[in-house]
Amino acid sequence: MSIDEVVGTLAGIFTTIAVIPQIYKAIKTRRVSDVSPFMFIILCLGVGFWTIYGFLKHDWPIIITNGISLILNSVMLVILLTQNKE
Amino acid sequence: MSIDEVVGTLAGIFTTIAVIPQIYKAIKTRRVSDVSPFMFIILCLGVGFWTIYGFLKHDWPIIITNGISLILNSVMLVILLTQNKE
Repeated sequence: MSIDEVVGTLAGIFTTIAVIPQIYKAIKTRRVSDVSPFMFIILCLGVGFWTIYGFLKHDWPIIITNGISLILNSVMLVILLTQNKE
Repeated sequence: MSIDEVVGTLAGIFTTIAVIPQIYKAIKTRRVSDVSPFMFIILCLGVGFWTIYGFLKHDWPIIITNGISLILNSVMLVILLTQNKE
């Protein structure tokens, strides 16, 4: 594995899993009022476009990392939209 | 501009600006207790590695979008670490 691939893989892993601590905290505390839903709407748009970009470029690392990010950020968005109603 | 470039540019813009609504909300409400600092620590690591990746590949769009993300996510991390002490 070249240094580029190592750095790219680490970058992809960190940016993909970054939302997990926020999902865990939201589920544990059931409190999300300080979290901005607009951040997650824009993030979902962003990683959604990166996933499309990956398909256009036939680039599987971009498709996989951003596809997982899209799922995780959507989970957080659903938590935000449902918790804020309570 | 090809469709790839349009989609890639939109993806880069959305993922770069996504944290701005959270920074705005944190400054306006001065409340961040529901926001996970670990999310922003991991995000800073991730976009930091993407910035290094951009330098290794001499890819200016990756350097610029992730460099700005690194600055913005660091701002949010500083807000989190200082607000949580109050």
